[in-house]
Amino acid sequence: MALHRACRAACGVRPFLRGLAGVSGGPEAEPVPQNAKALVFSGIQPTGIPHLGNYLGALESWVQLQEQFSRVLYSIVDLHSVTIPQDPSTLRQSVLDMTACLLACGIDPEKSILFQQSEVSEHAELAWILGCLTSIPRVRHLPQWKVKSQTQKSEGSVGLFTYPVLQCADILLYKSTHVPVGDDQVTHMELAQETARIFNKKYGDFFPVPKAILSATKKVKSLRDPTVKMSKSDPQKLATVTITDSPEEIMLKFRKAVTDCTSAVTYDPEGRPGVSNLISVHAAVLRLTPEEVVAQNVGLDTEHYKRVVSEAVIETLSPIRDEIVRLKADPGYLRTVLDRGAEKAKELAGPVYQEVRRLVGFR
Amino acid sequence: MALHRACRAACGVRPFLRGLAGVSGGPEAEPVPQNAKALVFSGIQPTGIPHLGNYLGALESWVQLQEQFSRVLYSIVDLHSVTIPQDPSTLRQSVLDMTACLLACGIDPEKSILFQQSEVSEHAELAWILGCLTSIPRVRHLPQWKVKSQTQKSEGSVGLFTYPVLQCADILLYKSTHVPVGDDQVTHMELAQETARIFNKKYGDFFPVPKAILSATKKVKSLRDPTVKMSKSDPQKLATVTITDSPEEIMLKFRKAVTDCTSAVTYDPEGRPGVSNLISVHAAVLRLTPEEVVAQNVGLDTEHYKRVVSEAVIETLSPIRDEIVRLKADPGYLRTVLDRGAEKAKELAGPVYQEVRRLVGFR
Repeated sequence: MALHRACRAACGVRPFLRGLAGVSGGPEAEPVPQNAKALVFSGIQPTGIPHLGNYLGALESWVQLQEQFSRVLYSIVDLHSVTIPQDPSTLRQSVLDMTACLLACGIDPEKSILFQQSEVSEHAELAWILGCLTSIPRVRHLPQWKVKSQTQKSEGSVGLFTYPVLQCADILLYKSTHVPVGDDQVTHMELAQETARIFNKKYGDFFPVPKAILSATKKVKSLRDPTVKMSKSDPQKLATVTITDSPEEIMLKFRKAVTDCTSAVTYDPEGRPGVSNLISVHAAVLRLTPEEVVAQNVGLDTEHYKRVVSEAVIETLSPIRDEIVRLKADPGYLRTVLDRGAEKAKELAGPVYQEVRRLVGFR
Repeated sequence: MALHRACRAACGVRPFLRGLAGVSGGPEAEPVPQNAKALVFSGIQPTGIPHLGNYLGALESWVQLQEQFSRVLYSIVDLHSVTIPQDPSTLRQSVLDMTACLLACGIDPEKSILFQQSEVSEHAELAWILGCLTSIPRVRHLPQWKVKSQTQKSEGSVGLFTYPVLQCADILLYKSTHVPVGDDQVTHMELAQETARIFNKKYGDFFPVPKAILSATKKVKSLRDPTVKMSKSDPQKLATVTITDSPEEIMLKFRKAVTDCTSAVTYDPEGRPGVSNLISVHAAVLRLTPEEVVAQNVGLDTEHYKRVVSEAVIETLSPIRDEIVRLKADPGYLRTVLDRGAEKAKELAGPVYQEVRRLVGFR
């Protein structure tokens, strides 16, 4: 399964995480010195196939964290997904599809606890308790609520509003110490940190204050408009490369990528966002710096360079795509992985939540 | 345990429920013809000792419903109680105290499932899903939020705001058909009914639309200000009779009850709220109409009448008080009652919630 990843990790790539002081210091992706209490948690919604930006920005780092931490949990957060209306049969399939995607990208159920959020009742239970410690204005002022609620009729649901509180519960339920997040989730991490402190102040020192791990990979931009980030929901089909795209689709999308009138390959994200986005993607898949990539491709014009980039992306994504196809043909296996993961997650979550109940005075 | 209650029920008292079309038609408190799916659910917060108004307005009807319905659940709703800050050790004790109060009032764990809400994880889990079907403005316009949030700093917590959604989950989790509620909870019942309809419309006919059962007992008023209702949190100690007050305390509080300058015993809630409140209480404890009570007490002046009322109240509350003292001395028994109740509640809640998960597309 996704052997290329293990191979690449073994070959010594540069760490692509920042904001992880004292944890990933060297160029090798080796186990790092860590506290026995260190625990990584992150979550991904089951809706939609991850795109190249998700892969380079988050999923690659998830895979690497398995090598660096002894306790790692990744959750397919179906409770979050229903904060926006979902079709039930699509959602049911999407949970299995996302499981296949994560496994194919290199998430190893022997190294990580991979599980479906709604299988572990304590997420919703702890969210209720934490919601009682979170003020309404604190949530209302989060930027995501402002954006998301505008796209929903009637301002959106109670679930959409309280979503960040469930995220706090997701993280704190396992006494997580490190949380890989995207830039757009930084304010939610701050809420989780603040909530841990509020709980600890009221009930005694219990939750570690979790640290964010930010991806060092620059946001991948739309191939049709390099001023906006690549998105699953982009209406322009050529804008987004998903990890299940065929080589022909990937080739086409890069060939049609919007660049500018200059044909040289130079890295200037402000002045030349289109070609710079291609260089960023290329650098990320090769685990090189943009400058190194530019040096390797001196003399190419952008038309040829697009071909070079698409070949590198195809080389990265093809084995993942094949593995996804293989895994999706075996839904029983995917279900077993999730169910075993849920059992292990419950073993961690149960005692923490029972202790929370005791601290709160329920028991 | 509280034998007087069984005795009184057997003696044939008039039904004190209204809004229960076709269920309690006759004067006897007998089992009524009902659908096999009929199920009564109600909840009470563990904070504070119930007062005479709670007893006459709600708890008496809870006891009676045990005789009328074959499936009855009463929950001590500790998840609701933490929407307002609580001291953990006080809360822990309050759960047991409330259990003692309910048993002493006549709740029979062989007839009703009496349980602590936070022991049944599905309450919080279903609340999350229902919150995703409930719009923010719908909750914001509920009158209780407007009142309660004003008494809290920073507008109150997310928990206080989403409290009515948890109430919906409490009710729907058991596919409840009948819910005894106070007048002030009618708007929350409407939300539960609406939420059941919204869920059914989206996912197929699943939840019965629950009916409210309103107590026929008029709200008991403060003994110090008969224009406001009796309340646990009244700062005037003489205003509120709790079910654990001693005979001397009850006698004193009624003796000091605010009436007016007219000494005759007449029933005129608008013009003579003080004495009319005494008549209402008296009528409720004797299970008579105010007119019958007035007829029985013709010729008494209010001073003597206060003594008559307090004696009737003492006769009702004394055995309850004694039973509370006895039960509180045996916390192990109280815990056992709650734990057995939680097991039974889980047996009902589990399959309903698993079916909800399937309908939503989680499984």
